[in-house]
Amino acid sequence: MTYPNWLSQRSYLSGDRMALSFEQQQWTFSEINKIALDYASKLSTLGVKEHSRVAILAKSTPEFVFVLYGCMHLGCEMVMLNERLSSNELTYQLNDAEVAFILVADVLKIKVDDSRVVLFSEIEDVTSVQFQPQQQWAKDRTLSIMYTSGTTGHPKGVRQTAENHFSSAVSSALNIGIAPEDVWLCAVPLFHISGFSILMRSLIYGMGVRLYEKFDAERSAEEICDGSVTHMSVVGVTLERILTSVERGSMQASDRFKAVLAGGGPIPIAYMKRAEKCGIPVLQTYGMTETSSQTTTLQVTDAERKIGSAGKPLFLYEVKTEQPGEVGEILIRGPQVTPGYIGEFAERNVLQDGWLHTGDMGYIDNEGFLFVVDRRSDLIVSGGENVYPAEIEKVLLGHSAVREVGVCGALSEQWGEVPIAFVVLQDEVTVAELLVYCREQLAAYKVPKKVTIVESLPRNASNKLLRRELRTWL
Amino acid sequence: MTYPNWLSQRSYLSGDRMALSFEQQQWTFSEINKIALDYASKLSTLGVKEHSRVAILAKSTPEFVFVLYGCMHLGCEMVMLNERLSSNELTYQLNDAEVAFILVADVLKIKVDDSRVVLFSEIEDVTSVQFQPQQQWAKDRTLSIMYTSGTTGHPKGVRQTAENHFSSAVSSALNIGIAPEDVWLCAVPLFHISGFSILMRSLIYGMGVRLYEKFDAERSAEEICDGSVTHMSVVGVTLERILTSVERGSMQASDRFKAVLAGGGPIPIAYMKRAEKCGIPVLQTYGMTETSSQTTTLQVTDAERKIGSAGKPLFLYEVKTEQPGEVGEILIRGPQVTPGYIGEFAERNVLQDGWLHTGDMGYIDNEGFLFVVDRRSDLIVSGGENVYPAEIEKVLLGHSAVREVGVCGALSEQWGEVPIAFVVLQDEVTVAELLVYCREQLAAYKVPKKVTIVESLPRNASNKLLRRELRTWL
Repeated sequence: MTYPNWLSQRSYLSGDRMALSFEQQQWTFSEINKIALDYASKLSTLGVKEHSRVAILAKSTPEFVFVLYGCMHLGCEMVMLNERLSSNELTYQLNDAEVAFILVADVLKIKVDDSRVVLFSEIEDVTSVQFQPQQQWAKDRTLSIMYTSGTTGHPKGVRQTAENHFSSAVSSALNIGIAPEDVWLCAVPLFHISGFSILMRSLIYGMGVRLYEKFDAERSAEEICDGSVTHMSVVGVTLERILTSVERGSMQASDRFKAVLAGGGPIPIAYMKRAEKCGIPVLQTYGMTETSSQTTTLQVTDAERKIGSAGKPLFLYEVKTEQPGEVGEILIRGPQVTPGYIGEFAERNVLQDGWLHTGDMGYIDNEGFLFVVDRRSDLIVSGGENVYPAEIEKVLLGHSAVREVGVCGALSEQWGEVPIAFVVLQDEVTVAELLVYCREQLAAYKVPKKVTIVESLPRNASNKLLRRELRTWL
Repeated sequence: MTYPNWLSQRSYLSGDRMALSFEQQQWTFSEINKIALDYASKLSTLGVKEHSRVAILAKSTPEFVFVLYGCMHLGCEMVMLNERLSSNELTYQLNDAEVAFILVADVLKIKVDDSRVVLFSEIEDVTSVQFQPQQQWAKDRTLSIMYTSGTTGHPKGVRQTAENHFSSAVSSALNIGIAPEDVWLCAVPLFHISGFSILMRSLIYGMGVRLYEKFDAERSAEEICDGSVTHMSVVGVTLERILTSVERGSMQASDRFKAVLAGGGPIPIAYMKRAEKCGIPVLQTYGMTETSSQTTTLQVTDAERKIGSAGKPLFLYEVKTEQPGEVGEILIRGPQVTPGYIGEFAERNVLQDGWLHTGDMGYIDNEGFLFVVDRRSDLIVSGGENVYPAEIEKVLLGHSAVREVGVCGALSEQWGEVPIAFVVLQDEVTVAELLVYCREQLAAYKVPKKVTIVESLPRNASNKLLRRELRTWL
């Protein structure tokens, strides 16, 4: 149960095709494979081995891709660190994952103070030697590990195997098609499944990746319209900004442009109509870290008829709710589903009777379209990042002056949603002090945009916090 | 380790898309799935069950597809019978496979006299009842069984699992791309892997199949040029006839047309140049029944530079020879390789150290291109059918007047190659009598086009027949 080494095979089969482009530079599969072998050799000299667990912390640059592909050649398990996390959060993940090395881009070295750190410049300085990559990859090999919080507020390290990523890429291809000349614009983080999965599709399809260090609405709009890219992954807010750029320039998407894949919740119908006028097909998707990216997709042709739907599953996947036709927990089955977690949650079974219990609530209509009614744990999606209320609540409850806390999402023009906190005090403290406290422990995008002191929080009969009720207080 | 039922899933996900077209009729995936469920219900009433081994004998008509899809819903193992075989040959396969039922198109009922026969009209006459198909298919489920002769002259029933077919379809997609609007023209037999694999791709991709009962050069040329099809499978002789039609009509392939997949040995460079002028991209492939269709493919762009090459493997596959760079037996590894045979050869291991030993000789050049030097057992490819010299020799040796026999292929304008026999006699017999004898026991296309009486046959030191030497006698 193996695959041929994806990097070696891609270099052998379509070595002359463009693999990666960044600003004015580009690399073919043959070139990027050579670079990856060189990185693998250097990392090997530094002591990184097959099955080493290695964390990577970097911005979306070619060097990040080189290190990542080097680690794939070596056979590492890569813990993908979110560069926006606070030092506390990073420390938790690094310890929970018990990584042997932390490979850090030089610009981010201030983020981690740890003896396991190896800077990218230190890797590059190593003299390279001949390196013989693995010919075969086990299907159940863990390629990547990504932390996600979920209901408990405890970040859990989700394993994604080679088979998870392969199934995901193949299922996506069977849904939207592939062609040798495809180029996917990647302006979503590589450390998220949204960006990481673009690299995996690149290797499996032999597809070019146009990489941006940061999202840039104007450049994205230009490249969608000048035909240099064929696909792009977006969330609602980034799509809206691209549409504004296209409209402002009175442009039209190139005929070569095939689709944007839109995650992070339903796209407003107003955006869909604007996108149609711009010639940009929008495929709305529903997926999560545990399903290695998209699990269902809503076709463009169904978007108006099925507003708010997340569509139908990809070919290899199944989706159901507990009671057919009724709102219930969304269950998912397929080869894209993680085999489990690492560290503290390593023993937890992710599957029950073969199905992933997502914690999200939804229903499937009589034509088989999935509607997600409520994301698990009242998930807030802020500028493409998942923010879990429970995680913020846990931090605020750690402050000695705080008795109770409830967090919910508030609509934001810029980010889609932002977190807002309601706090019941047991001692005196100012809102400013609470915010400083949060900033020490949370990534900036998780820090509540507003903290309101209240007398009590809405709770149900069994005293469970009603976060949806909180939203009506806004 | 399962797939969602391909028919149900395709009908659910893209029910409105065209699945099959034949002459003036066409069926969507939703329609064909309903028909298949109806056939499954009727077959079930007749006693066909999950895991039943069922032989099918039919011409390439929609009814053949309906029966085949009905059997897939039921979970049968389908023995695909070649309608051109003689009764003796069919009897051998039916007994070796120990089939429970023989489903025979009415026009072919004269071919088989057996109590297990059920005619298509008899299936249709059954009253249908509600039928609940399997939701899940085991990956290692045997979907199809096809007989192939090989070196010994003994036909062996090759098993092809769901995973074999799925891997083959996915690997082909990763090579040539797929798009929701693709339509594959199928004028190769459905009972061969070449045709059967088109149906499997149809279900897995959601792709339309344009089915012909018989190859028709003029209609193929028209449909390639009018944009109604995007792909077609051919062999050298059929390609040549299509090119002649396109040229005669001063036509050009439509921009929508993507590629012909050409099997059965290298395509002459003269054809490649004519195809280029006609706007028809030709992908030469190398594969066999044991590898569930293509294993390597030569890209159009490499065809002139690498004349005679079979190209490079598909993404999931590996190909090697015993000594790198030297001529040796071609070895193949990948998820498309059969797990083994049934019947008399059920115990034979097809893999040695994980590799299929093809019996074909070849080498891989320094850029990684495979060249097939000699097909196993001096395989003769006649009008797209594989003809094994050993099988014809065995039949002729059964005649009491024959002492020795050697069969080889001779070039034919119409068929590419045809079999020719050289015979050493021990008793008197006329060539006409020998031909009558052959016709009783062999499919018409296997009967030698010429029989020459000779004094002795060319043999090597260990007395092995030198079939290649025979060719120089022509």
